[in-house]
Amino acid sequence: LFIVADNIQITNKLLEKAVRKEDPYPIQQLVKKCESAGAEAIDINSGPVSQNPGKMAFLVQVIQDVTDLPVLLDSANPKAIEAGLKASNKTAIINGVSLEPVKLESILPLAKEYGTDIIGYLLNPDSSVPPDMTGRLNVAVELFKKCLDAGIDTEKLIIDPIVAPVIWQDGNIQDMEVLNVIRQLPDLLGFPVRTIAGLSNLTTGKGIKEKKLLLERTYLPMLAASGLNYILMNVFHLESVKTAVACRELMSNGIFTWESV
Amino acid sequence: LFIVADNIQITNKLLEKAVRKEDPYPIQQLVKKCESAGAEAIDINSGPVSQNPGKMAFLVQVIQDVTDLPVLLDSANPKAIEAGLKASNKTAIINGVSLEPVKLESILPLAKEYGTDIIGYLLNPDSSVPPDMTGRLNVAVELFKKCLDAGIDTEKLIIDPIVAPVIWQDGNIQDMEVLNVIRQLPDLLGFPVRTIAGLSNLTTGKGIKEKKLLLERTYLPMLAASGLNYILMNVFHLESVKTAVACRELMSNGIFTWESV
Repeated sequence: LFIVADNIQITNKLLEKAVRKEDPYPIQQLVKKCESAGAEAIDINSGPVSQNPGKMAFLVQVIQDVTDLPVLLDSANPKAIEAGLKASNKTAIINGVSLEPVKLESILPLAKEYGTDIIGYLLNPDSSVPPDMTGRLNVAVELFKKCLDAGIDTEKLIIDPIVAPVIWQDGNIQDMEVLNVIRQLPDLLGFPVRTIAGLSNLTTGKGIKEKKLLLERTYLPMLAASGLNYILMNVFHLESVKTAVACRELMSNGIFTWESV
Repeated sequence: LFIVADNIQITNKLLEKAVRKEDPYPIQQLVKKCESAGAEAIDINSGPVSQNPGKMAFLVQVIQDVTDLPVLLDSANPKAIEAGLKASNKTAIINGVSLEPVKLESILPLAKEYGTDIIGYLLNPDSSVPPDMTGRLNVAVELFKKCLDAGIDTEKLIIDPIVAPVIWQDGNIQDMEVLNVIRQLPDLLGFPVRTIAGLSNLTTGKGIKEKKLLLERTYLPMLAASGLNYILMNVFHLESVKTAVACRELMSNGIFTWESV
């Protein structure tokens, strides 16, 4: 289980201002804080500033100046992703593609050209969330085929089954199905496909912070035990990070030692 | 997921003294505290005082005087279990039987005679722990057959797959296999067999309390997501109880509400 920080979101006012003024300092400080907190990769969610692809390039540069961690280029704009890939001189992962036709056409070729890992979301072509497990698994098969068609090494594909907010009418039921999706994907696709999930999605919306944190650190071990490879999360949620580390130790094939928890 | 308190252990000096003097007060106070803390059943681990079956009868009487919760008669002495069954005027569960021949002979008939639920441990006939999943599943099949042979309604059987202490050489690996055992038992035995696990086993031995609690609340959701029905645990571990409740809400088929977490 690798920990990916979801903390670099340019919807954050402070970061948005820094990106607008191209001031690296606040961004780099935050990235360093994420790394200290346990991040093993950094998701760069460029949000609205993605309209200007140069801003993603700027973000990748200033972040890679202070960390060797892999970066995830998290944008709905293919041009921003491409600018990020061009700017990157370390490991970059595309986050991501879905069955939405414009994304398939514009983003899959980038994964092929740059030979990077690419995250595929289990969303319908219209970006809606499939309501059940069968829907998600069908999308996974479609995405897998599209990657094959695009000449991408399918081992580059990382699947995001889409964690549902519990406040959705059947959110928690979907989240239990997500566990089965993660468990079944390797057999379904015929290779040990990697998976990623966004933990913050679980508690999107209103709610008491303490209860949200409890829910995060309860769902995370369920995801881990299902075989999840990457957890995208707020790394400043100390107890959730500790839980991720504890999952890793429990699931390790080495000898358990209390020191590593 | 039902919460069973493992707090009534007569190895505890205070309780041992109370049982010796047949003073109900300390025992009843502790049971009330367990119920307030979230216990939904009370395991009565009579420990060394089981040599005197009357003490189990005493424990059952004084506990049932202050609570309507089901009690688990947790003893290695069939006579103590029988005394407990006789004394009980509410729900009592036998905890438990294993493939050890003397237990099969003496305890299975009690389950039949009293028509109670009975917990079966996935232990070898010599009481050693099977080292892997196949070993545990083989024992489950054997236990199931022994129940059939004894004329017990097999739906009365609750299986304890035996959580391994993480400090055992391959303890954490066994604990991951335990998850698969829980998941596979219903298919293996052909009916929705119930399962119970002892959470305190996980962190038996030396270790920092805070880390032990972290490990408990990390492993518990893994057990729950595997389909575990009963968790035997220290109900004074507040965060572990909160985690159990959060598991239940996440896994509920009803509509999730923050109020219930």
